[in-house]
Amino acid sequence: MRPDLLDRVLSLLPAQGDRPELTDFAAMLRDYPQRGGKGIRSELLLASARAHGAGPGTPAWEGALWLAAALELFQNWVLIHDDIEDDSEERRGRPALHRLHGVPVAINVGDALHAYMWAAVHRAGVPGGMEEFLTMIHRTAEGQHLDLTWVQRREWSLGEADYLEMVRLKTAYYTVVVPLRLGALAAGATPDERFTAAGLALGAAFQIRDDVLNLAGDPVKYGKEIGGDLLEGKRTLIVLHWLAHAPEEQKRVFLDQMRRDRADKDGAAIADIHRWLLESGSIEDAQTYADRQAREGLALLTEALKDAPDQTAARELLGQMRGLATREA
Amino acid sequence: MRPDLLDRVLSLLPAQGDRPELTDFAAMLRDYPQRGGKGIRSELLLASARAHGAGPGTPAWEGALWLAAALELFQNWVLIHDDIEDDSEERRGRPALHRLHGVPVAINVGDALHAYMWAAVHRAGVPGGMEEFLTMIHRTAEGQHLDLTWVQRREWSLGEADYLEMVRLKTAYYTVVVPLRLGALAAGATPDERFTAAGLALGAAFQIRDDVLNLAGDPVKYGKEIGGDLLEGKRTLIVLHWLAHAPEEQKRVFLDQMRRDRADKDGAAIADIHRWLLESGSIEDAQTYADRQAREGLALLTEALKDAPDQTAARELLGQMRGLATREA
Repeated sequence: MRPDLLDRVLSLLPAQGDRPELTDFAAMLRDYPQRGGKGIRSELLLASARAHGAGPGTPAWEGALWLAAALELFQNWVLIHDDIEDDSEERRGRPALHRLHGVPVAINVGDALHAYMWAAVHRAGVPGGMEEFLTMIHRTAEGQHLDLTWVQRREWSLGEADYLEMVRLKTAYYTVVVPLRLGALAAGATPDERFTAAGLALGAAFQIRDDVLNLAGDPVKYGKEIGGDLLEGKRTLIVLHWLAHAPEEQKRVFLDQMRRDRADKDGAAIADIHRWLLESGSIEDAQTYADRQAREGLALLTEALKDAPDQTAARELLGQMRGLATREA
Repeated sequence: MRPDLLDRVLSLLPAQGDRPELTDFAAMLRDYPQRGGKGIRSELLLASARAHGAGPGTPAWEGALWLAAALELFQNWVLIHDDIEDDSEERRGRPALHRLHGVPVAINVGDALHAYMWAAVHRAGVPGGMEEFLTMIHRTAEGQHLDLTWVQRREWSLGEADYLEMVRLKTAYYTVVVPLRLGALAAGATPDERFTAAGLALGAAFQIRDDVLNLAGDPVKYGKEIGGDLLEGKRTLIVLHWLAHAPEEQKRVFLDQMRRDRADKDGAAIADIHRWLLESGSIEDAQTYADRQAREGLALLTEALKDAPDQTAARELLGQMRGLATREA
């Protein structure tokens, strides 16, 4: 995230406490934001605000910046809790917060950061902003619930429609729909109704692209562990496509591995599955599906932005969106 | 909590979802509120609103009721996360939420309920209400952090001042200080400055009374397991007082038991410790301390309410507070 936005985020958080334990607590609140996320969602929000005429120098820009800070705080408290829920080992190149300080402390840090997010929404003072954050949290939590329930029940009898509903709820709202809408609201405009359909399609494309990169990306560019999603047992469109057509023996090996906790998975079997997936054509299928979603989303978004006050900024926003759906990292 | 307030809380929550998993999720959101908490904090808030002239029939009463609903939602999402953090077995006579649905799902349910709390705060539309909830969450999370850190570090070298700081942050703000202040704000009044000192003293008295009942209460009236705090290794004023004067051998047994997880604690040793505590006089000392805090808090609160518009309601509020600090259950 851009340095001035990080400063804004940190300005809301305590730098130290009245006693050593509370100074530690303050450091934990600042930890994830300081690990340097890409700031994808806040950039989209700010690009949308500019397209709607609320660029730097306008009185509305300050509100847009506070909403952008709130969106980053959202991302960070959610990641703290997600990392516990998935028992992730690392986040942005360092151990996940609960691996450093234990689950109880990390849950509590996430809760406090959640409240600081609302402080940023409040500071923005943008009419309709609070409702937008409420919708965003509810949709994201519902998507997360689908994902967690499927993991818990070891549920793999899922189709394309199930996957799509999950990623729309879990990823598309907070990654695209809500940033687009918040940018309009910050400018005092009514968000175009097409932002929702456009954002759901683009958000799904974004997530499927991420799933593709996780299996077939360039390890250097991608940054995360290639195949990590297999070890975590993530439901992806690729795996669900493949499962629908895989030979029985391969399916058996896959389901056997997916019944195991991460630590008990067999590296050789996972490597086999990875190879089967690469050879099956399911990755290309998923990429084709993502490309179609991205095209439809971009077409809708182009329509929706046709009358936006700042057409230069609108083109930048479209370019940014296109880049996210086709990215290499 | 009173039935009409429960209805108000439930009216904010979804009754069902678009698919079976999300209908389950909706039921999980409604579970804790429906288990029937006492509604102590919402009653205090409403009594404070009445004392400030915002009783039933006034336009401000509706705002007070939404703030009361928000306070109950706060209590419920915090309990879901607390139960995970303390790995509690039961809540209000039924298994804790994470014992029914697993830790990942329960964290996520708590997060969604947290957001519904903000929806209630927003619906109240009371100026200053949002700031009050922000302060409340931050103080409570700090108090919880002290408690969790001490548990994690097996820290028992703590004095009366440490305990007092912890319970003020963790319990007194959300139990007394903030309900008193929110009642005033709902009525459009500036909260009296003395509410803070009064609420901190009364909140500490409330918690110490709870600690006393946990060790020496009437099992039938109290409802919870007598001695449960010992099994959970809770820091209480009673234990800290006792530790400061206990014979070395008793201290050794105590610290040995406290090093163990709940399941590994020795029932006979815990029963010995319980008896030592009962015989030591530390329970009476703690009760005396709580009585002094309650007296000081009530004196301050009486002063602060001297000019409140509704003196009948102010007397009821004082009676309610006195009852909490001296309760048997």
